[in-house]
Order: sequence, then C-alpha cells, then structure tokens
Amino acid sequence: MRFDVLTLFPEFILGACNYSIIKRALNKKFININVVNPRDYTNDKHKKVDDTPYGGGAGMLLMCQPYIDAYNAVDKMGNSKTIILSPKGKVFNQEMAKEFSIYEQLIIICGHYEGFDERIIEITQAEEVSIGDFVLTGGELPALSIIDSVSRLLKGVLGDDESSEFDSHYDGLLEYPHYTKPRKYEGLEVPEVLLSGNHEKIKEWRRLQQFIVTKNKRPDLFEKFINSELTLFDKKIIEKNSQLF
Amino acid sequence: MRFDVLTLFPEFILGACNYSIIKRALNKKFININVVNPRDYTNDKHKKVDDTPYGGGAGMLLMCQPYIDAYNAVDKMGNSKTIILSPKGKVFNQEMAKEFSIYEQLIIICGHYEGFDERIIEITQAEEVSIGDFVLTGGELPALSIIDSVSRLLKGVLGDDESSEFDSHYDGLLEYPHYTKPRKYEGLEVPEVLLSGNHEKIKEWRRLQQFIVTKNKRPDLFEKFINSELTLFDKKIIEKNSQLF
Repeated sequence: MRFDVLTLFPEFILGACNYSIIKRALNKKFININVVNPRDYTNDKHKKVDDTPYGGGAGMLLMCQPYIDAYNAVDKMGNSKTIILSPKGKVFNQEMAKEFSIYEQLIIICGHYEGFDERIIEITQAEEVSIGDFVLTGGELPALSIIDSVSRLLKGVLGDDESSEFDSHYDGLLEYPHYTKPRKYEGLEVPEVLLSGNHEKIKEWRRLQQFIVTKNKRPDLFEKFINSELTLFDKKIIEKNSQLF
Repeated sequence: MRFDVLTLFPEFILGACNYSIIKRALNKKFININVVNPRDYTNDKHKKVDDTPYGGGAGMLLMCQPYIDAYNAVDKMGNSKTIILSPKGKVFNQEMAKEFSIYEQLIIICGHYEGFDERIIEITQAEEVSIGDFVLTGGELPALSIIDSVSRLLKGVLGDDESSEFDSHYDGLLEYPHYTKPRKYEGLEVPEVLLSGNHEKIKEWRRLQQFIVTKNKRPDLFEKFINSELTLFDKKIIEKNSQLF
C-alpha cells in the first residue's frame, strides 16, 4: 500500500519512518511513503503557501494553488482514496482504518495553521477526516496515526504472534487487564485465575473483564455491543453474571 | 509547563520538538520536554522491558519494574498530573486539553506493543487516556498530539493574531468554511458575502455556516450545543433560519 502525504513538514513525516511499526512495514515493503511539499509547487516567488482570509479574521489560510498543484503532481494509482485532515471531518476510528486498508493508495492532505481554503476540498474531492475532538496545529500527527493504524491491518505487517485481532476496538470492546511477571509486585498480585492453567476459565474471565471494563469506561461502546448479535459464549457469560449488567 | 514522557522511543519524541508549535513553545520557554526511557531502568541484563502474559495469549507486555523505576526517577513538581496512554482510557478531547493545561507538569506514560501490566496503572495512579477508537502501535503519537494541543492553550504560545479561541471545538461547534485569495479558482468563487465588507453580515453568515456544518457532520455536537445556554446572537440566527434546524 502506498501513502502520499502532502505536508509542509516532510522531514517530520519521514523522521517517523525510522520507528516502530511504520519502519517495519517499510522495511518489509508492505508500505511505501511518499511526501510532497506544497511549498515546492507555489507560483509565488517568496514560496508563500498561505494568505489572509476573505471576510477578515485571525490567522492565515492555506491557498488553493500550491495544494492543488502538489495534489495533481501525485501519481494516482487505480484504487486510490484521498483524505484531508480537518477538524470538521468525520472522526477517525478502527472501522475507517479497515476501510482505508483496502485501497492501494491513500493520499493524505495535511492542513496547518488556522485552516485551508474550502475549495481545496471541493477540487480534490477529499474526504474530510478528523482525529478527534481536540485542536492540533497541523495534520502531521493525525496523518502518522492513520498510517500506523492502517499499516497494522495489512497482511504480513504484524507477526503471527501479535495478530491485530485481539487489539482493542477490534470487536468494539475494550481490552481485559493484562499481567506479566512477576506474580507479585509492590504487594500487588496477579489474579489467581490467570495462574490456574485452566484455559476455558481464563477465556471466560477475560471476556467478563472486557464487558466490565467497557461498561464502566465506555458505556457508549457497551451499549452498541450489547445490542449487536451476541455469540452463544458471550450470552452465557452475561447470563451467568446478570447482576453486573 | 513541563512534560515528562516515558517512552521506549525517546528520539522520536525529541525529533518532533524540531517542528511547528512544539518547537516554538520550547524556544519561547513556555514548555519543557523531558524524555525518560524505561529501558535505561531495567534490572535485566539484556535490557528487557517486556514479557509474556500470564494466562497465555499473543504478544508481549510491558513489565512493572522498568516502568515504575523510570516513573519514580521523574522529578515531581507540586502541581503534577500523570496520564497513561491506553486504548481503554477516556477519549481525549479539548476539555481534557484545557484541564491538563492548568498543571505545572504532565507526566505521560506511553504504552507499546500489545499492552502493559495493569499494575503500572495502579501504582502510578495514572489516569488512562485514549486518543480515539482506533488501534495504534504505541503511545508516542498520542503523547505528541496531547503535548501539541495542550501547548497551544498556554498563554503566549500562540501569537495575538492566531488566538486559539476561534479554533474548532472551542465552543463545541465545527468551523465555518474559510476562503483566501484568489477570488476565483478553477471556476469556484468565494461566497459573495465575504467580499461585502459588511462585518455584521459576515459574522452572521459564518455563525450560520457553523450551525449548518455541525448539524450535518456532527449531529452529536450540534445536539449538545443547541441544548446549552445560547447567546442572544445565536438565538436570533436560529430563529431567522428556523427552516434549517
């Protein structure tokens, strides 16, 4: 899969390629990351990419010309999607990550400063995507977050022993609590059941913890889950612990 | 304000300090960023920081010892808060950014790999924070996003001409569309009203656009807004355009 990132900070995007899962996915050639700097496409002799807003107001806005020309310079693959990071976009989630992971190419336009000319969206037909309900200075951190979460879903990127299927949000529930060595640390002990060796019991305990954690911390997600089609296994656990739900 | 980041990728966090708002906030000495690598605190001769989960399962978990010792090594300031990035945390938003910006010190613990020993949370009493409903490989991108959004709120970081008050999510509504030069680009024109010079009309048009955009794209936010205490100005716009709402 190929990612093309339109950004005024290409070195920042490329710097992130030296770490963790993005590095691994690049090294194994499961992904490719190409950066395009709209500043290299400006017609302005001072390399200006922004200007004041029509109608007045604070801040500077990214202009159409450098962004559209940079966008047009990107080689488009057959199965390609364009997104633009914008606070008024649809909030990114795991479902969108899955949807994006199907494309051969994801073109990501990063905003910066106070915003961008609305016509950039109209011309590129980019889908507006937001990383969440908070304000960031630019689209670079969201772009990297999207590249990370999409890359994890590509076949081969994660090893067999770290399958993404068990990750949070994969089935809409939060994770059960994890414990590793030692058994006792600063007086805190690992729950007995995890040491029992009884795999059926452990599976049940973990699933129950998922229900409890999700219900307490994210009642919105639990509500969605409980109203979906439940497996027999899940139904049994809920019946058994009906006083909790 | 001081940020202390516990991370296995300190160079990645430090690399981000060379860009954009974080760089500016550092240069102007409004913030300080200190990185601590738990790997430097491990008692294991192979510098191991993770181990297999009790009860079985895929992946490796971050261990208590290196994380707790690294946490204890951080100088605590009087007015300090600790958070841990975790998919089962409360979802970060602008209100939390405002809340965090009041502290003198924010200690951020980044998870990585499949997860971490639950006892790290119990011992550090860290608040669990999630960046959103998607799966990332580590807490580094979320940590940087939090540092960016909190830094923007600190007095003096943004210039007078880029006040954060007008940013999206500041009053719970999405932004109105922005336009800059030229007036006409690829056949698309800037809305007439923005060229009128009538400031009252422009203000009203922009506010109306905020209502329309938010209602269409984020009905959840619009619902919250419309049920809050509205200003006289907002009430008038809604009455005038009652067919839209």
